[in-house]
Amino acid sequence: MTKSLFLLPGDGIGPEAMGEVRKIIAYMNSEQGAGFETDEGLVGGCAYDAHGSAISEGDMAKAMNADAVLFGAVGGPKWDEVPYEVRPEAGLLRLRKDLELFANLRPAICYPALANASSLKPELVEGLDILIVRELTGGVYFGEPKEIIDLGNGQKRGIDTQVYDTYEIERIASVAFELARTRKNRVCSMEKRNVMKSGVLWNQVVTETHKRAFSDVELEHMLADAGGMQLVRAPKQFDVIVTDNLFGDMLSDVAAMLTGSLGMLPSASLGAPDAKTGKRKALYEPVHGSAPDIAGKGIANPIAMIASFAMCLRYSFNMVAEADRLEKAIANVLDQGIRTGDIMADGCRQVGTSEMGDAILKE
Amino acid sequence: MTKSLFLLPGDGIGPEAMGEVRKIIAYMNSEQGAGFETDEGLVGGCAYDAHGSAISEGDMAKAMNADAVLFGAVGGPKWDEVPYEVRPEAGLLRLRKDLELFANLRPAICYPALANASSLKPELVEGLDILIVRELTGGVYFGEPKEIIDLGNGQKRGIDTQVYDTYEIERIASVAFELARTRKNRVCSMEKRNVMKSGVLWNQVVTETHKRAFSDVELEHMLADAGGMQLVRAPKQFDVIVTDNLFGDMLSDVAAMLTGSLGMLPSASLGAPDAKTGKRKALYEPVHGSAPDIAGKGIANPIAMIASFAMCLRYSFNMVAEADRLEKAIANVLDQGIRTGDIMADGCRQVGTSEMGDAILKE
Ligand SMILES: CC(C)[C@H](C(=O)O)[C@@H](O)C(=O)O
Ligand SMILES: CC(C)[C@H](C(=O)O)[C@@H](O)C(=O)O
Repeated sequence: MTKSLFLLPGDGIGPEAMGEVRKIIAYMNSEQGAGFETDEGLVGGCAYDAHGSAISEGDMAKAMNADAVLFGAVGGPKWDEVPYEVRPEAGLLRLRKDLELFANLRPAICYPALANASSLKPELVEGLDILIVRELTGGVYFGEPKEIIDLGNGQKRGIDTQVYDTYEIERIASVAFELARTRKNRVCSMEKRNVMKSGVLWNQVVTETHKRAFSDVELEHMLADAGGMQLVRAPKQFDVIVTDNLFGDMLSDVAAMLTGSLGMLPSASLGAPDAKTGKRKALYEPVHGSAPDIAGKGIANPIAMIASFAMCLRYSFNMVAEADRLEKAIANVLDQGIRTGDIMADGCRQVGTSEMGDAILKE
Repeated sequence: MTKSLFLLPGDGIGPEAMGEVRKIIAYMNSEQGAGFETDEGLVGGCAYDAHGSAISEGDMAKAMNADAVLFGAVGGPKWDEVPYEVRPEAGLLRLRKDLELFANLRPAICYPALANASSLKPELVEGLDILIVRELTGGVYFGEPKEIIDLGNGQKRGIDTQVYDTYEIERIASVAFELARTRKNRVCSMEKRNVMKSGVLWNQVVTETHKRAFSDVELEHMLADAGGMQLVRAPKQFDVIVTDNLFGDMLSDVAAMLTGSLGMLPSASLGAPDAKTGKRKALYEPVHGSAPDIAGKGIANPIAMIASFAMCLRYSFNMVAEADRLEKAIANVLDQGIRTGDIMADGCRQVGTSEMGDAILKE
């Protein structure tokens, strides 16, 4: 079995964070004979600077053929004025769409050592462990028409279209139910069925999927606005949350911020298993963005990127023991009071990106 | 000048909360000769039960002709299965649309006496005073097509359309800038221009409106997902937030929950000033919902409804002194430790809906 990784560090702090993952890959190859083969490409603003698009056809092909893609971050003020079609985010959106990575897994966990870093009262987030399962290839992100039309008289009209088909809702709901079975066995589905027809369909299909194949899992429905409230009020009530692309974008960011561990949170974007090989296409990326303000200073927190690689070990290569070990190493280093600037606290030792990576590697 | 109020108590705790406002209106009429004329109608589930629609044509006409509408809350599990077109929310949405109430003002303030009730650390919310200005008659709430189509083969397609025209963005941005001038003079506009064309247009039009007529106001742009994060991380950084209908729904609920004062937060929905009379159509409603679980028990918190009436005095009748007085009465009663169950705390005295209304009236 090949183990090909395609690295797309991207912009801002992406390359620095990816550097630490590269160290871990090198270690696993040399010390454990893990046999990872890596290749690297450009995505986002740096790709635009190099060749005028947010990702090249060559790099798209490599991403398509790799066993897994590791993605850093894209964007920054430098590219605020580039045309919409080639803006940095377009590279990420094309990867998601063309690789059909419909299932975005965003764990919102609160590292015990960091409960105090949350803006919420510590007792509300201590031990928090939510998994947000966000639909990633549909909804308002990709529906057509999506355009700005000139109406004359100085008036323009901006249009986006939210579209969901039964099969899209069914497959993301199934992923959520399956994952819930490996956790606390509870799913909360969020939409705005009181306002959106796609929400009505979402609610129906989730309910039917549950009845047909997952009735052993506890299912609850919540309006997305109420869901946002409940996340802030009492986040521990949730186990798995399943929701659409746009609500998932908002709710997973709110959930991430609740943990106080934003710089630590990974994500996995998975496709359907291949009918022949059973392999899923996959992309792993930190939840945080490119943080252009601190880029290049060697102070960025690489933990989210490293934790994303741990998810890669788990979901793409079934290397469960190695994933557990890497995640444990992160927790240990935090317990030892080693911190990058973003999570610095009294009595801890502040380190840079590279030292943090080394500390985790040592563990 | 007439002062006609049309009362739509609605479902759940709506009628109880409205009862306390009725007391205040009666007091202002008899003691202060305020001269309010009131009429009352049905909206939501109770309207459906009475005549099969979420609001009757007669009540729509009355709402249209009143100087202001006071709205309680709609919905409840009893009506979960009624057809989409006549669900309780349809009454509220029709009022907003037909009265052209495009500007929804949602203050998120933290009453000092309640800073501890927030799930956030008290120092992050003490003194919090944000105003969310939400567009209320456009976007994905009303855009067409909005439908579920049968594709055959057991597949359906749910479609909603997000549409914004230049003039819609311009007028809501103007409201936000004008209100900012009466506050800390800062506006933050939120959209997802990195994914949505309507977000691109939103961003452009807000920027142009600012340049043309409000360049004295400080303007910032933020992606809506990052905005959700920032609301949770450090809400006090904001003064006025202006955003679209759906983002406004989510973000204002998150902001409301942050304050710990959810049961206390009012809202105003305003139309454009009439060309001749300068009068704006207006509807005032609490941010909280119908809370069917505690309805009819006499324990609901009427403060949001009363504070909504204070907004009505301020925005519809320019009775600024009276509005200030009513808001001060609410704050005083809270300072005295008088609390309904939802905001009960150690050392306070727990009262019911009616007692709370009386205490405020007495103040
Ligand atoms: C960068 C942007 C296009 C993206 C999104 O909106 O999905 C990001 O916010 C995310 O959540 O991964
Ligand atoms: C009741 C519902 C239709 C409404 C909305 O989504 O606008 C509510 O959530 C609100 O925020 O006023």
